[in-house]
Amino acid sequence: MKLDELYALLRRRGVLWPTAEIYGGAQGLYDYGPLGAALKKKLERAWTSWFVGRSPDYYLIEPAEVVPEAVVRASGHLENFTDPEITCDSCRAVFRAETVLEKVRPNGIDGLAPAQIEEVVRSSHVRCPNCGSEALSVPQAFNLMFDVPFGVARTERAYLLPETAQASYLAFARMWEVGRKALPLGVAVVGRVYRNEIAPRQVLFRMRSFTQAELQVFFDPASPPGRLGPSAEEKVPVLRVDRREQGAGSPEWVPAGQLVASGLPEFYVEHLLHMLRFLRDVLGYPAERIRFFEKSDKERAFYNRIQFDAEVHLESLGGFKEVGAVHYRGDYDLTRHGEGSGKDLSVSRGPGERLVPHVLELTFGVDRNLWALADIHLAKDGDRTVWRLPPYLAPVSVGVFPLIAKEHRPFAQKLADELLAAGVDAEYDEASSIGKRYARMDEAGTPYDLTVDGQTVGEGPDRGTVTLRHRDSKAQERVPAGAVASRIGPSLLPPRPPPG
Amino acid sequence: MKLDELYALLRRRGVLWPTAEIYGGAQGLYDYGPLGAALKKKLERAWTSWFVGRSPDYYLIEPAEVVPEAVVRASGHLENFTDPEITCDSCRAVFRAETVLEKVRPNGIDGLAPAQIEEVVRSSHVRCPNCGSEALSVPQAFNLMFDVPFGVARTERAYLLPETAQASYLAFARMWEVGRKALPLGVAVVGRVYRNEIAPRQVLFRMRSFTQAELQVFFDPASPPGRLGPSAEEKVPVLRVDRREQGAGSPEWVPAGQLVASGLPEFYVEHLLHMLRFLRDVLGYPAERIRFFEKSDKERAFYNRIQFDAEVHLESLGGFKEVGAVHYRGDYDLTRHGEGSGKDLSVSRGPGERLVPHVLELTFGVDRNLWALADIHLAKDGDRTVWRLPPYLAPVSVGVFPLIAKEHRPFAQKLADELLAAGVDAEYDEASSIGKRYARMDEAGTPYDLTVDGQTVGEGPDRGTVTLRHRDSKAQERVPAGAVASRIGPSLLPPRPPPG
Repeated sequence: MKLDELYALLRRRGVLWPTAEIYGGAQGLYDYGPLGAALKKKLERAWTSWFVGRSPDYYLIEPAEVVPEAVVRASGHLENFTDPEITCDSCRAVFRAETVLEKVRPNGIDGLAPAQIEEVVRSSHVRCPNCGSEALSVPQAFNLMFDVPFGVARTERAYLLPETAQASYLAFARMWEVGRKALPLGVAVVGRVYRNEIAPRQVLFRMRSFTQAELQVFFDPASPPGRLGPSAEEKVPVLRVDRREQGAGSPEWVPAGQLVASGLPEFYVEHLLHMLRFLRDVLGYPAERIRFFEKSDKERAFYNRIQFDAEVHLESLGGFKEVGAVHYRGDYDLTRHGEGSGKDLSVSRGPGERLVPHVLELTFGVDRNLWALADIHLAKDGDRTVWRLPPYLAPVSVGVFPLIAKEHRPFAQKLADELLAAGVDAEYDEASSIGKRYARMDEAGTPYDLTVDGQTVGEGPDRGTVTLRHRDSKAQERVPAGAVASRIGPSLLPPRPPPG
Repeated sequence: MKLDELYALLRRRGVLWPTAEIYGGAQGLYDYGPLGAALKKKLERAWTSWFVGRSPDYYLIEPAEVVPEAVVRASGHLENFTDPEITCDSCRAVFRAETVLEKVRPNGIDGLAPAQIEEVVRSSHVRCPNCGSEALSVPQAFNLMFDVPFGVARTERAYLLPETAQASYLAFARMWEVGRKALPLGVAVVGRVYRNEIAPRQVLFRMRSFTQAELQVFFDPASPPGRLGPSAEEKVPVLRVDRREQGAGSPEWVPAGQLVASGLPEFYVEHLLHMLRFLRDVLGYPAERIRFFEKSDKERAFYNRIQFDAEVHLESLGGFKEVGAVHYRGDYDLTRHGEGSGKDLSVSRGPGERLVPHVLELTFGVDRNLWALADIHLAKDGDRTVWRLPPYLAPVSVGVFPLIAKEHRPFAQKLADELLAAGVDAEYDEASSIGKRYARMDEAGTPYDLTVDGQTVGEGPDRGTVTLRHRDSKAQERVPAGAVASRIGPSLLPPRPPPG
């Protein structure tokens, strides 16, 4: 679906809507309604199961998303977490430079200095998107963080975090004590972050408050986590810098082992593969819609030694869009916070030897992927609208219907209650025709529907069978009501990674 | 335990610690470690199950926690969400007036005007807690909200919400469309809120960023939700205003029906009872530690028609502390937002008749209750430290141990993996003696431990029995490994409310 059609559908079904909608909405802020909130929770659970569930030494924590100024000074965000802006001297409108330049620099302007950006503006005769004037000002840098000074006199300077990663770095020393004092150690956060985006747009793709799921793996570079083994044969869809420079846009499927032979570290490639499996096998994105976009020296943040963005091709947004990334950050973060805090963050690697752990970071945009799950899996199928979500992501797991409300209601309600008590997200519905109830559930992504009818009631409360309908195939079968939970239960649990 | 001892234990076990601990910590901000984050998630799940699970017309949403200024202007927060402060003219220290006056006004200063507060300061010869001077300044009001102005020029004024309730009021119109267009309609949020507390203290009891679980029930006062029926006989521990004025501190256990006879609306009393059952039966707080503290006309916010705070007696904090509340807010909120937004928020109550729904609000402090769960259930028992959390709240549901690591490891690891795949929060542990492993799990609140031994292995992979140990009784029994999930599974699901 196109963006407008998809957004209208999601709004109508109460999946999401603009914050303060009755006041005309707030730019870059969205509320998740019942279906959206449930989907988001299950998406976060699936991410946690796949990434944090990889090792007993990987932990999920829940830190505050506000930190004192010393933290963002040490991390470099106070100085560097900026976005170039362009002002129109004619109409006074202000824009993100990236937005204004997106036609002439489709790959973005990461790494360009303000003077270089100005050169692009002049040489390409770029015009103001608002009034068409060429009187565009020299780009300025603008810090994207929000400060929330504490105290009566607002003198305790603090900032809302623009990424969860910093909270994991702050927690490293404590987690080292709490865990088994060994590397690799993983610290993950699923939490809100805040950025003062100049031009929020594309619904969930550029928000001012959004949720990131980020895993930081602290490791010793002499024995990094992630061996390829037989997976060396598996192919990864990459768009390398050299092919990008030749103008290529579609990825090449390259065996993991070959990526290692080309110079990428084995642990890094193994994690690209782990991310690929999550996007393809857990979230169900078609392989041909996924690519790993390599960032060049100029484009990536200076502390990243290697960076591939995970991108997914979305019809609603007209191209490949970043939904996550794999960053090899070296020892930058713990070194900076060691210096900033005055606390030694090095750990013992053996008798008389110490090291500052390196960091491999896996990031995942929860809101962006929620949108991608709608873009990819929600579609018209003839006169049906079906959201083909994997069962473990569906907000409602099973719809429970009486065929005729006044005759079959007690049995159907009891069945719904029993399923809820067994931890299955069941929803009872007796409104309108069975066909309409199926249609509502299809649109909400519900993988299973159960219908209680005269046969069920006739067979008796203990042995009654119900009709189990499958969303995707529309196939129906009769199963004993008491067997439903164990029959559908396993499909409702998110996949766990294969043992490392 | 006393506060210092309890806090030290929770910190050592990585349940929680001050944010940016390596930088010396940030006042009023805490990070939850692995055990704390898991406990918090399960506490939120239990709350949702009990309060939102009460009706198919009650929904959980996940709104942004930032709103445009127009919202907090209409709600009255811009004008009224203030705290009186007292400044020492001698040492320049600034304090919350409530803190400075807590000895002379143990019931707080809610409802007192600045002039009245000043009179208390003068007449009681209150001294500066810092330097002892009596030169304390006239109280000033201080807005507790954080503003986060958006945009390049920071001209789009916005605020971090100090309560989640406003987000539910904003969502009412959309939820009316999404739901079945009938009252009562419930909208719940579990989310972060922000307050610039002048004097954060008592660990999780006065934080600057914390999590609230709040349910707003929109209803027609002509047919409010909540009939007592046979529950009219059940007693509720209340401290009414009249007894408070006589100096009483301990609650009276009054039958619900009698509270109605005394003038409280039946629906209101029914919800006090529902909250009581949650605290006592779901969270396991002893009945004698709970009281509902009635706020007087002067003490409660002007928009609250009735307010009882749910309070729990905590050893670590030396008295009864507020952990939630039940507010009857009338039609204040939707009326104000209707005026503020210019959108008619009234709904049809029948042919030709419309009304602005009334609001019954149930609030619950997630962090405060997490602390209460530690204060109440975590205790020394001889030489053991045991956290007697209800099984459905325990961060780890079951510990899985090989009796002798090198002999029983494969079987025990396989069992742990199978339990994890079945959705049971199992944790494998082979370090040190069985006794020490039991002790670690007891302290973390784990209700069950499984030990794999020679007998298990001898009996074979399909029929092997393991030792199931119960945390509280220390009783042990042998059960087939394959039967563990179904045996302990039901106790790991949070209770659902009895059908209304």
